[in-house]
Amino acid sequence: MIKATGERTIMDLCISELVKLKGDERKDITTHGIIYNVRDMGDFAFVILRKVNGLIQCVYEKDGSEEEKSILKIENCVKVTGDLRDEPRAVNGIEIVVKNIKVLSEPKEELPFSINKYKLNIALENEMSIRPIVLRNEQRRSIFKLQEGLVRAFREYLEDKDFTEIFTPKIVANGAEGGANIFKLEYFGKKAYLAQSPQFYKQMMIPIYERVFEIAPVFRAEKHDTARHLNEYVSVDFEMGFIESFYDVINMETGMIKYAFEYLKKNYSVFLKKLNVQLPEITDIPCIRFKDAKEMVAKKYNRKIKDPYDLEPEEERLIGELVKEEYGCDFVFVTHYPVKKRPFYAMDDPENDKYTLSFDLLFKGLEVTTGGQRIHDYDTQVKKMIFKGLYPEDFESYLMLHKYGCPPHGGLGMGLERFLMRLIDEKNIRATSMFPRDTSRLVP
Amino acid sequence: MIKATGERTIMDLCISELVKLKGDERKDITTHGIIYNVRDMGDFAFVILRKVNGLIQCVYEKDGSEEEKSILKIENCVKVTGDLRDEPRAVNGIEIVVKNIKVLSEPKEELPFSINKYKLNIALENEMSIRPIVLRNEQRRSIFKLQEGLVRAFREYLEDKDFTEIFTPKIVANGAEGGANIFKLEYFGKKAYLAQSPQFYKQMMIPIYERVFEIAPVFRAEKHDTARHLNEYVSVDFEMGFIESFYDVINMETGMIKYAFEYLKKNYSVFLKKLNVQLPEITDIPCIRFKDAKEMVAKKYNRKIKDPYDLEPEEERLIGELVKEEYGCDFVFVTHYPVKKRPFYAMDDPENDKYTLSFDLLFKGLEVTTGGQRIHDYDTQVKKMIFKGLYPEDFESYLMLHKYGCPPHGGLGMGLERFLMRLIDEKNIRATSMFPRDTSRLVP
Repeated sequence: MIKATGERTIMDLCISELVKLKGDERKDITTHGIIYNVRDMGDFAFVILRKVNGLIQCVYEKDGSEEEKSILKIENCVKVTGDLRDEPRAVNGIEIVVKNIKVLSEPKEELPFSINKYKLNIALENEMSIRPIVLRNEQRRSIFKLQEGLVRAFREYLEDKDFTEIFTPKIVANGAEGGANIFKLEYFGKKAYLAQSPQFYKQMMIPIYERVFEIAPVFRAEKHDTARHLNEYVSVDFEMGFIESFYDVINMETGMIKYAFEYLKKNYSVFLKKLNVQLPEITDIPCIRFKDAKEMVAKKYNRKIKDPYDLEPEEERLIGELVKEEYGCDFVFVTHYPVKKRPFYAMDDPENDKYTLSFDLLFKGLEVTTGGQRIHDYDTQVKKMIFKGLYPEDFESYLMLHKYGCPPHGGLGMGLERFLMRLIDEKNIRATSMFPRDTSRLVP
Repeated sequence: MIKATGERTIMDLCISELVKLKGDERKDITTHGIIYNVRDMGDFAFVILRKVNGLIQCVYEKDGSEEEKSILKIENCVKVTGDLRDEPRAVNGIEIVVKNIKVLSEPKEELPFSINKYKLNIALENEMSIRPIVLRNEQRRSIFKLQEGLVRAFREYLEDKDFTEIFTPKIVANGAEGGANIFKLEYFGKKAYLAQSPQFYKQMMIPIYERVFEIAPVFRAEKHDTARHLNEYVSVDFEMGFIESFYDVINMETGMIKYAFEYLKKNYSVFLKKLNVQLPEITDIPCIRFKDAKEMVAKKYNRKIKDPYDLEPEEERLIGELVKEEYGCDFVFVTHYPVKKRPFYAMDDPENDKYTLSFDLLFKGLEVTTGGQRIHDYDTQVKKMIFKGLYPEDFESYLMLHKYGCPPHGGLGMGLERFLMRLIDEKNIRATSMFPRDTSRLVP
């Protein structure tokens, strides 16, 4: 009988193991990879393999046979045996002198473009349809390694601060954020929706775990196709109890972002380099009131204020520009948004009930986070729901939170794709979503 | 101007900080929590606070006032100042002698049941409706701490084995698993579905990252309400390239589970203890062929084989029993499932094309994982789609994987709630989903 022990079975070596080999260990090593590039040098060829964590160079002595041509095809999956040697000009400083290449599987067709170029020269609109192959490019795949790096860093930071990770349902009975941008669903004869955010659930968890987070998909049926909207995106959500003010939330996020940049610098420098990313330097992030921010921009750029209740994208961009110029910072917290534009769970500012104790974080002039302090008192919450035209009886289970006791708390939701888009200076959010969903795109 | 630095602002101490204090540091400490229990001892009361990572005991000297009664209410959120001292009989070996309690917020109503009992004595059906408050119970909240622990362990293991974490869309154009159990969705005038699994996407990533994983919600419109089905659950998915056989996948999972149990023992012992969990001991996991397993059970328990193509739940239970008895193991891999019951992407067994190179993992007689080797050759995949009654032209972007080259690969999907349910010996899967979704339940 076969028994699974959990011991390693695939004995082929990965790059981090190859670079550590010394002396006789370097003889007759075996590894595998996908042929990413072949550079013909006459008598021999450099064969570059794409492996789990990067590229490795192989030196292949040619014999000019037909068989050889079919072996050295781009995107062939191969197993290689050979001797390892130092080669300072190669990536990782090593190369394999090939003794044998075995083809494990081969493509049916050649790729419709050159995968191994630095600039792919494919329009984003066309790229979207062939993402499964475009991401085989070293620069493209680096984008989503950075996505992974950000998520790992955020998690590590939040875990260290005693946040509990939760998993909340995405099929829900009512939306948390209000408005029409919600997807409807047939659910065993009942009407259901796709969660716009885990808002209700993370708040419910506050009296249970005090601090919680979730990194998961959320769904917005936004009808406008823009360069900064997706209909499905990954939301980095956290919520924390016993806060003294929403500045505690702002501070937690500031710490999280600083940590993430340090983390990327330490662990993802290869991918940062591949994409020429300059990490922003942050010591602190300025906080400017919504009203003041609007006025500063109107004055400095000689603009009229059209909508006093919200920031236009252009205003956000200019606030970012202004803050960069005056404070040298790529980030700015805009605080105290008007009641009119914030959801029913936002706490009013006791000093001026036209405003809320809430904030957005702008990163290079783009909103990447929305957060604030939430109402924790039952009567206040019920009153505000009614003020907002909602029926408290529709929110019975959510209101258990307030009815049975809940500490002062607040939190935020950050759009992962937007954050990454700003970090790597991409102009369209579709560049930082592996398989973006917009009003016209469901495939792949 | 306020500037956010990311430095800690809430200065109240958490339990792990309190236990470390020595000498004069123990005087006049401040902490916060929610009143979980009050034990009246005459002149004084033990006030037990629920905090982010557990409970802490406070000693409160009574004065018999009315104000005192309103302070010492269950589920009050309070801030406490006082002196810390050793008390071996208290949890964590310390207690706070209270000098001052300040109520930060109080419930509108008393809880409809006693939250601080070991056995809550609420029927599961009733509990589901009041989950937001039931989870305030120490035992209940421990369940989802173990969920977190499993996820952290799985991730840590997979990251260490060079798996890349990915985020794939949940709104999709077609189902990966076939069958009728798929939720339909109106998507800007087009028909869309909720992903039954990330299968297509994780396979597409194989030539890009070689090894990938995702831990995220999946959706199944199963019409039958059973104790082991949910309509939305968390799937632990991984996929790995360059395998030599599906036993490489089995081995990876075995290693992952062993790692997770070690991890829980080391980091989550408090919660294991609260729920009286005995972690299974595993050295290796037996692998039995589907056909043999069916025959072994038929023979040993004197049963007739009704359906030769699938395992009935009762058969799974008996295989679990048999393996426990004969091999002393809570787990068993059942391998080589019939082609008829496996999806179109499963690779046929070259030795017998009625069977596939696939497996299920049973944990105490319940299927918790399905996996196997996938087809990587384009022509073979197209042929099998047609054999299964599908139209290859519906899967154009998925088939780019096979068309443009892909190494031999395989993977699996594990149901997190099922795994946890078996681990803590719960009989109904609703116990291990925070807010379960079944055919009749959408709220909370």
